[in-house]
This record gives sequence, structure tokens and C-alpha cells, in this order.
Amino acid sequence: MGRIVVGVVGPGEGASDDDRNLAFELGGLVAREGWVLLTGGRAFGVMDAASRGAKGAGGLTLGVLPGDDYRGVSQMVDVAVLTGLGSARNAVNVLSSRVVFACGMGPGTASEVALAIKADRPVVLVRPDPVTRAFFKSLGGALVQDAETPADALALARRLVT
Amino acid sequence: MGRIVVGVVGPGEGASDDDRNLAFELGGLVAREGWVLLTGGRAFGVMDAASRGAKGAGGLTLGVLPGDDYRGVSQMVDVAVLTGLGSARNAVNVLSSRVVFACGMGPGTASEVALAIKADRPVVLVRPDPVTRAFFKSLGGALVQDAETPADALALARRLVT
Amino acid sequence: MGRIVVGVVGPGEGASDDDRNLAFELGGLVAREGWVLLTGGRAFGVMDAASRGAKGAGGLTLGVLPGDDYRGVSQMVDVAVLTGLGSARNAVNVLSSRVVFACGMGPGTASEVALAIKADRPVVLVRPDPVTRAFFKSLGGALVQDAETPADALALARRLVT
Amino acid sequence: MGRIVVGVVGPGEGASDDDRNLAFELGGLVAREGWVLLTGGRAFGVMDAASRGAKGAGGLTLGVLPGDDYRGVSQMVDVAVLTGLGSARNAVNVLSSRVVFACGMGPGTASEVALAIKADRPVVLVRPDPVTRAFFKSLGGALVQDAETPADALALARRLVT
Repeated sequence: MGRIVVGVVGPGEGASDDDRNLAFELGGLVAREGWVLLTGGRAFGVMDAASRGAKGAGGLTLGVLPGDDYRGVSQMVDVAVLTGLGSARNAVNVLSSRVVFACGMGPGTASEVALAIKADRPVVLVRPDPVTRAFFKSLGGALVQDAETPADALALARRLVT
Repeated sequence: MGRIVVGVVGPGEGASDDDRNLAFELGGLVAREGWVLLTGGRAFGVMDAASRGAKGAGGLTLGVLPGDDYRGVSQMVDVAVLTGLGSARNAVNVLSSRVVFACGMGPGTASEVALAIKADRPVVLVRPDPVTRAFFKSLGGALVQDAETPADALALARRLVT
Repeated sequence: MGRIVVGVVGPGEGASDDDRNLAFELGGLVAREGWVLLTGGRAFGVMDAASRGAKGAGGLTLGVLPGDDYRGVSQMVDVAVLTGLGSARNAVNVLSSRVVFACGMGPGTASEVALAIKADRPVVLVRPDPVTRAFFKSLGGALVQDAETPADALALARRLVT
Repeated sequence: MGRIVVGVVGPGEGASDDDRNLAFELGGLVAREGWVLLTGGRAFGVMDAASRGAKGAGGLTLGVLPGDDYRGVSQMVDVAVLTGLGSARNAVNVLSSRVVFACGMGPGTASEVALAIKADRPVVLVRPDPVTRAFFKSLGGALVQDAETPADALALARRLVT
């Protein structure tokens, strides 16, 4: 069987320092678990930070990009899938992830969490704000969990993946 | 120039009577405006109700479907676009809509509202619950408005489209 | 039930005068049949010519576009579906067509004919060159027919659609 | 920078023994080059054979699948991208490949070669039949080359990738 792929999603240009720090730490934990890290593959925000964390821990990083060329692909991505689909690629990212971790929130991230729930993929919201938490819990029920730290998020994911 | 296309999104199988009634009424108003109604095209829920309303008012209905054949296409759809894309078609629906009206909420609908905001398409939430309203306002700011009635929703859309 | 949608595909910028003339004539015949004309929706080549023919005959035209905004949409398109999918939208065009007519040949057109065969949609090649004819016959067998004139192409399609 | 990804495309269920043997050998050569092998990821035909060849040579295999779950994914795929896009995923496969090798021909493969040309990705046809060769040369010109053996195909690709 193939390797376990898990996704980390979160804001790109709108990411906060906190979002990026959580994503970096989580990327490292994912890599140390032996899982492949999937992100949106772009050169900034949560995507880049998570991939940087995974690379630093010796992991393999997969980037599934909206565009059709290599401009703007994060240097931290080992394997780039250029979809050319624009934001429709968000559906691909979550389908391809055994678990989806969300660090931070924005329109693209919200679409990914919603599409994950629709596709029956478990979601772990990492340190969500109360409105985000309430909204997605009301949509996804038990499929949506939340964690205060990357380590707690990983522990939740371990139970979901195995 | 082509005709104005506006979208009505909302739950399919999980739609409430209220969601369907609002969608039916809104579909009729959209048709009377001379606009083309776009929905997800399936034979139940908000998609079907909105199309039924539009057809009853003599309008043209476009259905953009997730599947690749005619099974499950609403009889109320005049022109069916079979995407075969699964939920990635949600991105197509909102890109193709000058305004997106949401009646009710669920995972697929949430993804469409989020993708609309991401693509800079104005959204009108029709009689949203408070958490939905708060969540999407925090994501979309002025791009997201809400209305208590289909007539108010249409009045907002008129200003956005022209 | 909804209206019958048929597709006309062919080169964009690389279209010859012959390609455009055939497409224009075919668009008119499709419209007079009461069918909805689907094209790739752009403002040049076979897409534009077919839509112009259909509009001249009072028909309804649907354009399924690769881009995510209204720039470059043919003025002859009544209903524009903005997919934002790039060339992946070629799969949508053929899935949504009960029959696919090809006027002329190029890389995009070849992908559409091949995808039509893959999806079990009948194809009519209008005045194909011998290599094109031989290639697609070898791929599609009875699913691929050819015609010397738009009138003959339409006659073939009538039998396929009903 | 990320790793070099190259694609091997060819028939699934309709593959001949020759197609599979060429694909197996090519997969091994790709892996020994240090490149990542991209295929359509399914458990039969050229996709499976190429991945098997690459795995046997210690390579990394990426499968970009049409479906939305793990049924039917080749055991030879290390990293599975589940697109849920049906045949629209063919566009993703070629965009993500620095070079596309085709072993054998069929409707899906033809769409991939055509989409590769459209997207300006170089194509190497491995031992093509004369009609296939003539057709794609007429579409793609210098972008389309052919080779009699996997070793020759790899030699061509080396010049294209670097």
C-alpha cells in the first residue's frame, strides 16, 4: 500500500505569525510520523511554513497547486502537482488527505474544511477561534475536532488514520 | 453581451422546508428579473426548489452538476452542464454567478459561499442563522450581505449586478 | 426533461476560413433543430463562428470557458459558464454534449474528441483530413462518424440524439 | 527546488503486453534517473506497469487518480492524489509532467498527448504506430518526438528536462 498522506491547510498571504508557527511545528510532527505532507504548495503562508517544518524533519512534501506552471511554487515542495484548476484544486487537496489539519482561517481554508466534511474526511482545527469552531462543528459534528497544540492535533490524527 | 447568470445554492438532501420555500420564491424573482438561474442541478433540495420557482415564472434554468450522466438531474433544469468533477464543480458554480444567494447551510453550501468570497463574487445569505452570518461576515466583510426575505435579497442583488 | 445540448468544437486562434464557415453553418442548423449549442465560448475561431451561426438562427448558445472572468467571452454566447479550470474544462464540454461535432483540428480539439470517445459520446468529424479520420476511427470505432457537409453532419446527429 | 516529475501515460484495460513491457522498462529508467514517476495511478495497464518498474528500481511513484477513494489504486503507487475529477484529471497529469511518455494508444491516452501539446509539454511517443505518429506530429510539430526503445526515449527526455 501507498504512504499515508495528510493535509495542512490555512491562509496564504493572510496568515498570521501564529498560523505559520503552528503549521511549521505540525509539518515537523507529520514528517516524523512518516506521513507525506500535502499542502497547497505556494511559496507563502501556512502552505510554505508547514512544508518547511516537514522538510526540516526529513519528510516528503507534496504541493497541489492552483496554477499551471512552476512560478510561485514553494521551494519546500518536493513533488509539485500543477493542477491548473484554480480554486477547484481545493477539492483535490482534501480528497487526497486522510486527515485535514487547519491552521488559521480564510476563504480558501474555509472552502477546504467544508469540502473535507462533504467528502467525509476528518478535520482537526488547530487552535480555532470560537466562531470558526462553532460553525464547522455545526456542519461536521464528530468529523470535526479541535486541538490547542500541534502535538494534540497529531495525537487526534493518529487515531483517525490507523 | 450575454445574459446575467445568478446562482442559488443551498442544501440538497438536508434542506429544510424553509430553505426550499425561500429558494422557490427566490427562483421566481430571479426569473422575473430576466436573469438566468444557476443551481447545482440535482433533483432535490434547494437546487430543485429554486429551479421550480424559476420555471414557474417562465425563466431559464442552468444546472451545473457533479456527475457525468443525466441520472439525478432535476426535471426543472433547462440546460444541464455535466461536469463529472464531483464537488470541485462547486468552484464552477460560483465563478459563473454574478451573485450567489445561499438559502440554508450545509457542507457543500459552505464550500460554495467560501469559494465565492475567494473569487470575489458577492454573496447574499438569505435568513442565515447567527453563527453562519458571523462566520462568513468575518471571512468576506462587505462582500457578504444578508437579507430576511427573498424580495430583500433580490433588491440587494440588483444593486450588485448593475 | 431539459433541452438537448450539442457541442461544436474546433480550433480557436488556429482556425481556417473553412473551419469557421463550416462551424457557422452548423451552428445555424443546430439552432433550427431547437437544440442548445455548446462551445468553448471564446471570442474567436470555431467557437465564435458556431455561436454566431446559432444566434443568427435564433438559437440559445452556451459557452463553457477555461477562464474565470468575462474577458475574452464571445459576444455570441448567451449563457457563459466560467470554469476557471483551464483545459480541464474540455472534459466538461464533451460530457455536457449529446453529440460532439468537430470542425477542424488542433491540440485542444483533439483532446475534446478523445475525451468524447472516452466518455462514450458520439462524435461527428466534419470534413476531416485523412489522418485525423484514420486516427479517431481507430480509437472510437462506430462512435466516430464523419460527414462532408454540415447538413450531413446534422442528419447523422439527429439519429444519435433521438 | 523540487524533484523532477515525468509522466508515463498509456492504455489501462486495453493495454497490450508490448505496451506494459515498454512501460515497465521505462518506469525503471525514470527511477534510476532520480526522477519521480507520475501515472494515472490505477491498478492495471500501463499505469501499473510503469509504477512497478519504477518501484523495482527504488523510485518514487505518484498516482493522480480520477476517482475519490482508494479502491482501484495501484499497490505500486507511493503517493496517491485522489482528484475526483474523472477524465478531467488527464489535464492535471500532463501539466504536472516535465515530459510525457506515451506507451500505446487509446482514447484517454490520446487526450493526454493532445492536452500535453496544448500545454506546451514535450511528448515522447514510444514505438508509436504510423497513424498515431503522423497525427500527433501534425498537431505538435517539434514538441512531439518518438523513440523505438525506452532507452532512446529516456535519452530524448534527458535533453528536454535539463
